[in-house]
Amino acid sequence: MSGKLYHGAAWYPELWEEEVLRQDIRMMKEAGINVARIGEFAWSTMEPKEGQFDLSLFVKVIGWLKENGIDTVMCTPTPTPPIWYTHGHPERMYVDREGKVMGHGSRQHACTNHPVFREKAALITEQIAKAVGRQQGLVGWQIDNEFKAHVSECMCATCLGEWHGWLEKRYGTVERLNDAWGAQIWSERYEAFEQVPQPGPAPFLHNSSLSTMYQLFSMEKIAEFSDEQAAVIRLHSDAPITHNSSVAFHVDNERLFRNLDFASFDTYATSDNLPAYLINCDLWRNFKRGRDYWIMETSPSYAASLESYASPHPNGYLKAEAVAAYALGAEAFCYWLWRQQRSGCEQPHGSVLSAWGQPTVGYANVREVEEARQAIEEVILGTRPVQAETAVTYSDRAKAFLKTEPHRKLNHRGLMTGFYERLLAMGIHRDLVPEGGELEGYKLLFTPFLPYVSPELTERAMRMAEKGGIWVVGPLSGGRTEEHTVPADCALGPLEALAGVETVFTYPMEGTGSVGQAFGVSAPLSLWSAVFRPLEAQSAGIVEQGLTPGLSFLTERKHGKGKIVLLGSMPEGEEGDQLLRKLVDHYAREAQVTLRTDVSPGTIVAPRRGEDGDVWFVINMDGQGGAVTLPSKAVDALSGAAITPGRLEVGRYEYRVVRFT
Amino acid sequence: MSGKLYHGAAWYPELWEEEVLRQDIRMMKEAGINVARIGEFAWSTMEPKEGQFDLSLFVKVIGWLKENGIDTVMCTPTPTPPIWYTHGHPERMYVDREGKVMGHGSRQHACTNHPVFREKAALITEQIAKAVGRQQGLVGWQIDNEFKAHVSECMCATCLGEWHGWLEKRYGTVERLNDAWGAQIWSERYEAFEQVPQPGPAPFLHNSSLSTMYQLFSMEKIAEFSDEQAAVIRLHSDAPITHNSSVAFHVDNERLFRNLDFASFDTYATSDNLPAYLINCDLWRNFKRGRDYWIMETSPSYAASLESYASPHPNGYLKAEAVAAYALGAEAFCYWLWRQQRSGCEQPHGSVLSAWGQPTVGYANVREVEEARQAIEEVILGTRPVQAETAVTYSDRAKAFLKTEPHRKLNHRGLMTGFYERLLAMGIHRDLVPEGGELEGYKLLFTPFLPYVSPELTERAMRMAEKGGIWVVGPLSGGRTEEHTVPADCALGPLEALAGVETVFTYPMEGTGSVGQAFGVSAPLSLWSAVFRPLEAQSAGIVEQGLTPGLSFLTERKHGKGKIVLLGSMPEGEEGDQLLRKLVDHYAREAQVTLRTDVSPGTIVAPRRGEDGDVWFVINMDGQGGAVTLPSKAVDALSGAAITPGRLEVGRYEYRVVRFT
Amino acid sequence: MSGKLYHGAAWYPELWEEEVLRQDIRMMKEAGINVARIGEFAWSTMEPKEGQFDLSLFVKVIGWLKENGIDTVMCTPTPTPPIWYTHGHPERMYVDREGKVMGHGSRQHACTNHPVFREKAALITEQIAKAVGRQQGLVGWQIDNEFKAHVSECMCATCLGEWHGWLEKRYGTVERLNDAWGAQIWSERYEAFEQVPQPGPAPFLHNSSLSTMYQLFSMEKIAEFSDEQAAVIRLHSDAPITHNSSVAFHVDNERLFRNLDFASFDTYATSDNLPAYLINCDLWRNFKRGRDYWIMETSPSYAASLESYASPHPNGYLKAEAVAAYALGAEAFCYWLWRQQRSGCEQPHGSVLSAWGQPTVGYANVREVEEARQAIEEVILGTRPVQAETAVTYSDRAKAFLKTEPHRKLNHRGLMTGFYERLLAMGIHRDLVPEGGELEGYKLLFTPFLPYVSPELTERAMRMAEKGGIWVVGPLSGGRTEEHTVPADCALGPLEALAGVETVFTYPMEGTGSVGQAFGVSAPLSLWSAVFRPLEAQSAGIVEQGLTPGLSFLTERKHGKGKIVLLGSMPEGEEGDQLLRKLVDHYAREAQVTLRTDVSPGTIVAPRRGEDGDVWFVINMDGQGGAVTLPSKAVDALSGAAITPGRLEVGRYEYRVVRFT
Repeated sequence: MSGKLYHGAAWYPELWEEEVLRQDIRMMKEAGINVARIGEFAWSTMEPKEGQFDLSLFVKVIGWLKENGIDTVMCTPTPTPPIWYTHGHPERMYVDREGKVMGHGSRQHACTNHPVFREKAALITEQIAKAVGRQQGLVGWQIDNEFKAHVSECMCATCLGEWHGWLEKRYGTVERLNDAWGAQIWSERYEAFEQVPQPGPAPFLHNSSLSTMYQLFSMEKIAEFSDEQAAVIRLHSDAPITHNSSVAFHVDNERLFRNLDFASFDTYATSDNLPAYLINCDLWRNFKRGRDYWIMETSPSYAASLESYASPHPNGYLKAEAVAAYALGAEAFCYWLWRQQRSGCEQPHGSVLSAWGQPTVGYANVREVEEARQAIEEVILGTRPVQAETAVTYSDRAKAFLKTEPHRKLNHRGLMTGFYERLLAMGIHRDLVPEGGELEGYKLLFTPFLPYVSPELTERAMRMAEKGGIWVVGPLSGGRTEEHTVPADCALGPLEALAGVETVFTYPMEGTGSVGQAFGVSAPLSLWSAVFRPLEAQSAGIVEQGLTPGLSFLTERKHGKGKIVLLGSMPEGEEGDQLLRKLVDHYAREAQVTLRTDVSPGTIVAPRRGEDGDVWFVINMDGQGGAVTLPSKAVDALSGAAITPGRLEVGRYEYRVVRFT
Repeated sequence: MSGKLYHGAAWYPELWEEEVLRQDIRMMKEAGINVARIGEFAWSTMEPKEGQFDLSLFVKVIGWLKENGIDTVMCTPTPTPPIWYTHGHPERMYVDREGKVMGHGSRQHACTNHPVFREKAALITEQIAKAVGRQQGLVGWQIDNEFKAHVSECMCATCLGEWHGWLEKRYGTVERLNDAWGAQIWSERYEAFEQVPQPGPAPFLHNSSLSTMYQLFSMEKIAEFSDEQAAVIRLHSDAPITHNSSVAFHVDNERLFRNLDFASFDTYATSDNLPAYLINCDLWRNFKRGRDYWIMETSPSYAASLESYASPHPNGYLKAEAVAAYALGAEAFCYWLWRQQRSGCEQPHGSVLSAWGQPTVGYANVREVEEARQAIEEVILGTRPVQAETAVTYSDRAKAFLKTEPHRKLNHRGLMTGFYERLLAMGIHRDLVPEGGELEGYKLLFTPFLPYVSPELTERAMRMAEKGGIWVVGPLSGGRTEEHTVPADCALGPLEALAGVETVFTYPMEGTGSVGQAFGVSAPLSLWSAVFRPLEAQSAGIVEQGLTPGLSFLTERKHGKGKIVLLGSMPEGEEGDQLLRKLVDHYAREAQVTLRTDVSPGTIVAPRRGEDGDVWFVINMDGQGGAVTLPSKAVDALSGAAITPGRLEVGRYEYRVVRFT
Repeated sequence: MSGKLYHGAAWYPELWEEEVLRQDIRMMKEAGINVARIGEFAWSTMEPKEGQFDLSLFVKVIGWLKENGIDTVMCTPTPTPPIWYTHGHPERMYVDREGKVMGHGSRQHACTNHPVFREKAALITEQIAKAVGRQQGLVGWQIDNEFKAHVSECMCATCLGEWHGWLEKRYGTVERLNDAWGAQIWSERYEAFEQVPQPGPAPFLHNSSLSTMYQLFSMEKIAEFSDEQAAVIRLHSDAPITHNSSVAFHVDNERLFRNLDFASFDTYATSDNLPAYLINCDLWRNFKRGRDYWIMETSPSYAASLESYASPHPNGYLKAEAVAAYALGAEAFCYWLWRQQRSGCEQPHGSVLSAWGQPTVGYANVREVEEARQAIEEVILGTRPVQAETAVTYSDRAKAFLKTEPHRKLNHRGLMTGFYERLLAMGIHRDLVPEGGELEGYKLLFTPFLPYVSPELTERAMRMAEKGGIWVVGPLSGGRTEEHTVPADCALGPLEALAGVETVFTYPMEGTGSVGQAFGVSAPLSLWSAVFRPLEAQSAGIVEQGLTPGLSFLTERKHGKGKIVLLGSMPEGEEGDQLLRKLVDHYAREAQVTLRTDVSPGTIVAPRRGEDGDVWFVINMDGQGGAVTLPSKAVDALSGAAITPGRLEVGRYEYRVVRFT
């Protein structure tokens, strides 16, 4: 956006005296903060009484910040409507699955679909956009804050009506809905859209289609609200717009970012959960391909609220996080929050300054980040992240399917992170590619845990295979239709014909003593599984023990210059991990994946490319130090010193920037 | 019913195209299915709009089935009223204990006591009964489906009114209720029946009488609904009527089956929980004494829903289950379900065919069942299960008492199954006899975990003792009155005088270091216990350590030619199990129980008797193989080969049919 | 009150026939019961119909009791309003945090703030007071029963209105409230008191100030109700008034007892949880300094309800409990309950007699108590408990703060009991002193786990230090303001200047590898911690490892003749316990604490003083026996036998009364 790397913090000028604000800005400069995010909870300051707007504070502080060399990301304050909006209006509030109506005083307590909310949100957004939209120093917008972080699907009367409209748009007639959902079952059948309930209290589970569609409806509606906000802003500002999201929230990130200008996320992963941090970087880079993402919030030390706290980061870790973020494609690395809250429910949350304006335990780490940022800025700006050769399909719609159908408490995030962690540990450079993302340039695509595999994705993946790529589908992929029903013709729908197999059985493998063998490794098989008879395919993995010995759990079939590989089951345990590593390794070699290193676990390599050639960021992130083999001659891009090929070591949380010559 | 053994499956013709139905029937024949159960969720097909009935589909498929040699059990569809019944009528819906009102879209979401529900249920039942009641092929009826499986006591306004009526009928005047419940306590006392609440939200526990009586009321009302349905059917059909129940549901099975024609149950016990399967067979045989029961639902492989799945049965187990069921008195062994659901919340559930019409992983096992069924049918039809000499009292009313008063999370089903498992492992042929069941012919009766022991049961048990039987009462039996209060004259009410003891103390034994000794075994004692001073009884077990050393926890007193034995405490742990085995063994010998074998654990012997003498079905059910000593010369009833007395071995899931000669 | 030691029991004459009552009184005399508590749930007996009062039963039984030498404590029956009060009046009922409205039939189901409740409660109290207020035998009153034991803060509409009034009284203007709560955060800001919600359903946490203030409001309101009841009673009776409370209930005991005449508590701690029992004695002695407290309820054997039971006391333990209670300052030791309930939800609860009038398993222990009571009465009456030199600040308001902000599921009661247990095990005689209590005479004061340290407490503690005392503040003390916000000027507010330190950082230490060293012991540090730079203080404990090595977690500063010591972190584990013992020992020596013995853990010494000098009650309470060194010549106060100085042993649950000569 700006030809620089941002180092930022969330700031709440509406909560403090002017004197404190002056001190804050002074200390931001000292700390190396060059962007502040403001305004996302300040509605009652901006519109203290209904229809009376006062943006002067924000105009003023954006000016002060700019004077001090600090840019601003302005937010819309819609997660926290003022008391004049909520008081006496239970019909405007969020209603949870049990029917409980939220009260004023936390956040996300209002229903974002209520027409009055939309009207008031558009008004305040318009006012803000007019006031600061073209102000010097304003470099970006954030819509709202962490959509659907605390809530999921609202069950209020407004949403019921919107739901009926959404269904009518989707299905046209109620008979089509009945057919699509198989609603004849359990006499669920509806005579009119108005009769379709929300998935509220019921003695047993709701129809899977109802449950999943209600989630998709909710995801669409929140994205629609985001679209509306963005449209208002664009009338008055050219600054790019984002939203600070997460894989943990009840949103469809791919849909949400479609109409926004850049992608950003919040993360509070602790230092012992490295893949949970890095997966965001490898995913967010691909929501707006070619455009840097932002880390809009992360703690300089620890997350906390009245009821919990995380362990503080070890010293040095923050710097490693920041360098990894920038190297993997971030334009900004921003803290939540600048100054500790004096009141509310997040008083204990880690910050850069304490409530009384002193450096916190994280402060020295923030300074380290700033030093690193300055050191690497030039290299980063002169390069771009190299597109990976290996991709993994990511889908928040799959998350919705798994929420409806968790089998045995399966969790989409956990499954995906586990799968991702293996590629990471194997030193394979990887992209998480949204379900609808382009696949040009990939050599190897994994599509695990995707119950419904769309024709569009299938077509793109097969095109990739045509050209020589390998598409590995499964486990748990393809067994459901778009409507969250069972395919009526075969177990995995169109995939079967493409893969040249017949699915003989599908069944859950836990407790059956199932063992599968592939690539010379035998491992227990688990999860809901599909076992195949290869028709026009070759078996690549055989069930050795269990209920269906002799059938395949892994098949491959040539397609064009490439292959489609079906993985019907989940190898588990230590042997399972070995088997999967062999599988990944095998197809990576076969697909001629070269973006891969022997980096030791806990250390990462982030490859970038510029006019001057390739650069590797090698970053130790586990505090244990690590090493990687450099394939050719290089120089240290920061010091200019030559580096001989071979083993390069990095110390505890150390990073090196290696430019190949 | 029919001079044959049934092998059946649940089938949902309302969900599939005619072509699929034709295929289904063809494949049922191939699989050996000779009875289909239909209709239990099909209300919206039968009465798509209120008052517009269309039974043609069901008339048609019963005909098709019959043409193919397949009989039909027709169901009433009342668990799932159509949208025209529920939409816009929250007052007709089930309300849970927290006050949550159920919505449309699952099952059992309607209150079965609402007068409009009863009216509409009677109407649809009448229509069905008229349409198919005398049709060729119809061999039985099932009322509704799994009453109170997903719900327990409804808390709606209709039920509140019915509750008041039920109380008035039970108590006559509110003062009698106040007296019976000791309602003066905590100023609970009511001035009118209309004031008696449902046991809804309260800061602490409700009066035990209120909680227990509300359960009994609910159990009575659902049985009354069953009665009403049966009465309507009988006007138009002579086919016998059942309901598919379970010990897990919130019903009084003894009361429920009183006005039905035959008993049936559903079971989804996994193969590692053998007693949970067999206890049903030994109980259901006795709800309608002399009439075979049905297993109306069991999985050919595994139970599952969107949120859970069981491990599939090992190959071979299904056959063992079926042979055990038939041998222990079943006329039918039926699957849920024939063809996998394409939609709804049970898509993953195990079935005979997949949704796309192919054999599932359970199919080969279904074929094995059919082979076995054909092999044993003649022997089964020529014999009847031999009444056991050893009985155990079973009471769903005790289940209600324990739900009100679980002590420390005690669970009636778990306690009873544990007690049952010991008899099973000891090779003792046993009947579970409902609380109100006849005791003629029994030599040894156990009555454990029955807080209230009725005068009727006492009288029958004492009559049995008079003739030489031994009645072992306890643990946890007799300490509460019919109204779920404490007896006012002594700890165990009338039992004490009959047993010739004085209960000196009652108290919980956990944590007191209590050890009891009986039959030469010392074991820790547990649970709420009664310790006795024998007056006209002999001590048979003494508290050795703990708070009350020297008192008895086990006494016996002669009565007529037999005995009444009081067991006041629960021996626990490995030694406790030993002590209880010694106890069972001792009284079994003393009562001259002969229906007992040395069969190895995991293998069962089901004795039957016919005009040609006695037959034993010896079935290995744990997959480990087993053995039993044959007391005399026999032949293999299937092959006719002679079998020498002595050790007979059976292999993994093998069964033998041994006819003594 | 009466120049005797009471041995009492709760009794429910309204539940039994006259003949039973006569038997009860006869057996009370036999058992040595000399006081009965009656009436606390008998509203429907006293006022069976609204406005129709009948106290005759209670007048009669107080007379009968008196004739038999048994005094009476009369209760007001307000925890259980009759059905005429509750039926048809949901607006009068308690509403929980989820919005559930309680029904009739348990207790504490009515909102105690409803004006009609207050009116009816005053009326029945007046009637009782008039009827028995000056009757012979009446020696005391109990208001209601266990306020807020089953419920916490009511969320009904009445309470909402009262809340607004309370806020207005506290803050004057809504802007002051907004400022105090920092309510600009998250746009919570209110325009009028009427808009301030109760802390009901919300997507995430409420503002800490809202949550804590609502608790303080609720605590004040229930105390106000108690005040009202007491005022009515005092118009008609001179007998002293109490309430049976507990640290487990949602009340501010200090505030509650302010307007009552003596303090009492209920305890059902099991014998394996000795500190939980004794902490009550050492605290309740100080709610009404100089006035003996009562143990109003404890079980003779075990607590139980329909859903749980405790393990019965070992034989002998009850006597040890009673002697400890009397020795530590109790005038009465009373059971719940005399005769086992025949109905309701507490039928299984341990009692002195069974429901059928026989001695229970606890009866012999009750007789032991009576023997001990008679033996020690003269000594007890001739002495008073010696004020401790070591005090620990106790605050139920801190409990409210920790409920709002539990960090990681911290529990005020558990933290305080753990801290107390250490002093107990070290043989240090101790007082728990309510936050507002006088500190005259103390040499050493610990103030741990007190988020807000008031100026009043600070002033008293500093005055104590001035005179030579040592005030040890922390851990977790001082980090919050009176309004439950963060101090705006420094981490620990005014404490820092007083202690002569700067708090450099505050952060949670778990997971950071923090180790602190003090008094030669190194131990892991935990909990939310403050680390200091001593300014005018000396470091007494240094962080050795972790994020902030070199800073202090323990400092001391001279103040007058004494010291203020800041403890910023919680040493944990075995080493942590060692460190804390060294700390206690160090400051106890420095403060010249002499009220300390070498008594073995599980045995206690309760020192008393009379005109004839000092007496020690040495009581073994863990059933293992124990010993203490007597510093000088003594006699056995019961037998008169001489005891040589040196080691005195006591056997299992034995007690000795040692008078120093």
